[in-house]
Amino acid sequence: MPSTIYDVTTWTIPSSPGTTAESDIGAIINSIIADIKANQPSQDSKPGAVIYIPPGDYSLKTRILIDISYLQIKGSGHGFTSSSIRYNAGDTSSWHEIWPGGSRIRVENTDGNSEAILIHRDGLPRLSSIELVDFCLDGVSFTPDQNSYQNGKIGVRSTTPTDSLRITGMGMVYLERAIVVIEADALHITDNFLCECGNCVELTGSGQASMVNDNLIGAGPSGFSIFAEHHFGLIISGNNIFPRGRSSVHLKNATNNMVSANRLHAFYSGMVTMEGACHNNLVSANHFLRNAETFPVFQSTPHPEDDLFGLVHVQGSGNTVTSNHFSFDAPGSDITPSGAKPTMVLVKSGDNNYIAMNHHAANVAVNAVVLDGSTTDTKVLDCGSSAEFQALSGATFGFRATP
Amino acid sequence: MPSTIYDVTTWTIPSSPGTTAESDIGAIINSIIADIKANQPSQDSKPGAVIYIPPGDYSLKTRILIDISYLQIKGSGHGFTSSSIRYNAGDTSSWHEIWPGGSRIRVENTDGNSEAILIHRDGLPRLSSIELVDFCLDGVSFTPDQNSYQNGKIGVRSTTPTDSLRITGMGMVYLERAIVVIEADALHITDNFLCECGNCVELTGSGQASMVNDNLIGAGPSGFSIFAEHHFGLIISGNNIFPRGRSSVHLKNATNNMVSANRLHAFYSGMVTMEGACHNNLVSANHFLRNAETFPVFQSTPHPEDDLFGLVHVQGSGNTVTSNHFSFDAPGSDITPSGAKPTMVLVKSGDNNYIAMNHHAANVAVNAVVLDGSTTDTKVLDCGSSAEFQALSGATFGFRATP
Amino acid sequence: MPSTIYDVTTWTIPSSPGTTAESDIGAIINSIIADIKANQPSQDSKPGAVIYIPPGDYSLKTRILIDISYLQIKGSGHGFTSSSIRYNAGDTSSWHEIWPGGSRIRVENTDGNSEAILIHRDGLPRLSSIELVDFCLDGVSFTPDQNSYQNGKIGVRSTTPTDSLRITGMGMVYLERAIVVIEADALHITDNFLCECGNCVELTGSGQASMVNDNLIGAGPSGFSIFAEHHFGLIISGNNIFPRGRSSVHLKNATNNMVSANRLHAFYSGMVTMEGACHNNLVSANHFLRNAETFPVFQSTPHPEDDLFGLVHVQGSGNTVTSNHFSFDAPGSDITPSGAKPTMVLVKSGDNNYIAMNHHAANVAVNAVVLDGSTTDTKVLDCGSSAEFQALSGATFGFRATP
Repeated sequence: MPSTIYDVTTWTIPSSPGTTAESDIGAIINSIIADIKANQPSQDSKPGAVIYIPPGDYSLKTRILIDISYLQIKGSGHGFTSSSIRYNAGDTSSWHEIWPGGSRIRVENTDGNSEAILIHRDGLPRLSSIELVDFCLDGVSFTPDQNSYQNGKIGVRSTTPTDSLRITGMGMVYLERAIVVIEADALHITDNFLCECGNCVELTGSGQASMVNDNLIGAGPSGFSIFAEHHFGLIISGNNIFPRGRSSVHLKNATNNMVSANRLHAFYSGMVTMEGACHNNLVSANHFLRNAETFPVFQSTPHPEDDLFGLVHVQGSGNTVTSNHFSFDAPGSDITPSGAKPTMVLVKSGDNNYIAMNHHAANVAVNAVVLDGSTTDTKVLDCGSSAEFQALSGATFGFRATP
Repeated sequence: MPSTIYDVTTWTIPSSPGTTAESDIGAIINSIIADIKANQPSQDSKPGAVIYIPPGDYSLKTRILIDISYLQIKGSGHGFTSSSIRYNAGDTSSWHEIWPGGSRIRVENTDGNSEAILIHRDGLPRLSSIELVDFCLDGVSFTPDQNSYQNGKIGVRSTTPTDSLRITGMGMVYLERAIVVIEADALHITDNFLCECGNCVELTGSGQASMVNDNLIGAGPSGFSIFAEHHFGLIISGNNIFPRGRSSVHLKNATNNMVSANRLHAFYSGMVTMEGACHNNLVSANHFLRNAETFPVFQSTPHPEDDLFGLVHVQGSGNTVTSNHFSFDAPGSDITPSGAKPTMVLVKSGDNNYIAMNHHAANVAVNAVVLDGSTTDTKVLDCGSSAEFQALSGATFGFRATP
Repeated sequence: MPSTIYDVTTWTIPSSPGTTAESDIGAIINSIIADIKANQPSQDSKPGAVIYIPPGDYSLKTRILIDISYLQIKGSGHGFTSSSIRYNAGDTSSWHEIWPGGSRIRVENTDGNSEAILIHRDGLPRLSSIELVDFCLDGVSFTPDQNSYQNGKIGVRSTTPTDSLRITGMGMVYLERAIVVIEADALHITDNFLCECGNCVELTGSGQASMVNDNLIGAGPSGFSIFAEHHFGLIISGNNIFPRGRSSVHLKNATNNMVSANRLHAFYSGMVTMEGACHNNLVSANHFLRNAETFPVFQSTPHPEDDLFGLVHVQGSGNTVTSNHFSFDAPGSDITPSGAKPTMVLVKSGDNNYIAMNHHAANVAVNAVVLDGSTTDTKVLDCGSSAEFQALSGATFGFRATP
């Protein structure tokens, strides 16, 4: 059997022997994938291969196209460092180093594509068990300035369905979009550093039985740290989600998912947003902190949502929001609309939502729970005093104040 | 020092040079283990070794016997794909591939044994720190048909006690039993795909201080996704457990364990079952969904338990069931006994159980909690209305309805 | 580009060709680090390297000094075994093996230093993305006896700030202090065995946005399993923390952190201790067990805290303690002061703490919650009967007994 172990630093493209991993790791990996396919022609035996990326600085000029199952691309170092701090530090001529590292791919497409890695295959079955492990995708810089979170670059994108895709131990930094996965089944995104990207995890189209857990995540001020639409059976758990994403977790038309045991820190409302037909989701045992931006560059950024939107914003029915802690610590000048009483949980629509035993510690008077007038049969239990609860006209509910 | 790094594709069995990893990876690995033992004869220095399995298709005809500590067997790809979908897809002649992949071991024992990997050593100390990492155990097919979940094959089995056994990043598929571990101490099963197996994780005999977390798991209709007996201090957390196991988590005579932040989806009651003397366990912040089988092959499978059994079934005392979400969405035709009012939590026996702040969203009228007449001093708080609570004659309890 | 892949067993120190990894792995690794630096002189490209430690027994006589970013040190085996059991077993001449294994480093500094690995660099930026993966740090023995948990040895220590340091899949045993990290940002300690060490994880100075999750941990009777001071945004989740640490989780002057879904087992009060100005922390969905020491050597160890100290001890304001389970199962002879009614949660100071829906199962009468007279506006909900609640004179609170 031909070897199934490849090293990007030792591969030569037959038609382009001058290309190296340093000059274009994308072309190298695509050539390796072609070799894997040539070596595994039989439908009956296509076990795939592993492509190893040693620590090093690699330019990606050509998009990687993964169209085989069972491909593992593996480095030896997630290589994250804060480019935001570096770019905003002024003179760095005395610094030990100035870039991310590890098995670091600089995403510098010159092929007209946006993605560093595209996962796509037509026909059946779905691509299975692709694994991206322990390397770094670095978008290098934003435009027009280093705090825009924009450069059109995407780290990993799939445009056809996948099964059991695993993304683990990666570092992604300074990409406009880090991970964009469509129609995922049994996707597992775990133990990654996905930071200083415009958007971090976008689960689009639909999906089921997936997991986003134990990641360190932080999006840009207009982006989503974790976004999922039409997902079912998704676990979002154990993540440490820091600013400055517009939403830490944004569910859209998503039913029967779980957001548990995450720590979320943001500068705006809408930290967990359920948009549209979001039913039967559980939000439990999370720690929320909303405070104010201290980095001058972003202090004038308009808040994507005002403070009446809710740190948790619920649209849909049958959702459970329990055992969460809310810290609110923002000066009056940061609260919008001016003079508003901030809302911890807003039930914007739906029937049979259950908001119970959430505690808040706030530097100003807040509403623990607010019910839109369209909502029916919400239960609000032990979340605060009567003065911290507001039900708009028309709402039906059961309420119990903390004694 | 002789090398402690082995590759199954380059090893030759001295007495059987014609055997290859492709023809019998079991014989190859057993020969490697013999070599490790020969190279580490001193009680004072037995650090073990690592056996690497590159991506490839390997037949296992001889059972692997691990009887040394500190052995790591490591591949480069969990290689899971759905064999169930493939076998039920009809004509797959146009498919890109039809089998699981990665570092894939086809479990095809011709040696009269059931196990792909047996962990066993008599004498002292217990085997320690065996690690199985990132490869695939594929049972290939079931008999007499591909939906039976039966073939007598076991992926990994231990029959003597172990300490700090780690199973991580594996794929196991189409085995009658994936993992069967006896008398575990500090066992860690994490980040695996254990799917389309009759039973997935069976922790037998007894055990302590172990963890089954962050796995994607789904057993066959008569099997257990996770089973543990006489375990103490077990964490079952962060798992995504999908159908069609008879029980997602089954504890038997098990005390002081924790089932937290899992997402569980099943077609029957008994999703979390505590059988026998189950005391002082915590079931918190889990998401439960019970709906109906849609795959025609299994729609006539009798339910292992009826809908009065409880999605959570509690036998024993001092257990805590809090902050869970229950979704129930099954048509009347799927509810047994016919016309029954399904039970979310059944306290079948015991004293001082505490069932609180669990919410349900159901398409039919349900009982949030039912107490057997033998139960004493149960607390039932904020789980639903009085009409959704039933205490059989003789039960003593404290009850508070949601307002 | 020079290779960035190093193997400790094949490296020769130019100035000391007789030194081997077996004789002094510390000197070998320091020499490799010097080579990495020599090969990466440009500020513009310092991707680091990976140093591989095959399974084997290695002596460390010289402290490893990591002063470059993006260094990954990786083994093939955490190699934990219980040295405590072995040392206390009497005659082990018939044992298969007697030491830990895997990629095992015996910490035997002869250089006057305490640390096996020191992480330190002055100047900017902070060291980033150092990764320690899948090897064993073994302190070998304690002094003056094998149950002292003392030998002055430290596994990993940082003395300057770090970003995105990752410690994963390691085994550490018989060290006085396993991990001591100062001023951590985005630290990730996961999936390790940190057992039979005096202290296991100490996060000192300050820190933010870090994670200690999914570890198996157990400190010595006078040590901390997890300690964190001035930390902010720390997740401690999914850990299995067993005896005999004086404190399973000890927070000091720490605000806005989360302790969720851990299983904690100890022989003393103070299992989770918040000392000093600890505000706005969440302790949710954890399982606590306090029972009595059964190992004769330690049965006479004085309890670091008495049973009035609280299994959870809260100093500070705005903390949330919900959905936890407490098992208390200690004989009267083990309870101090003699005849005391043990306390599950003590609120020692502060305002606006929220203690709700925690259940206990105890073999003796206990207080579910006790409030110091200095505390104000604590909420105590559904944690037990009025007889199980005690508010000292001066305390203000809202209390609701379980019905």
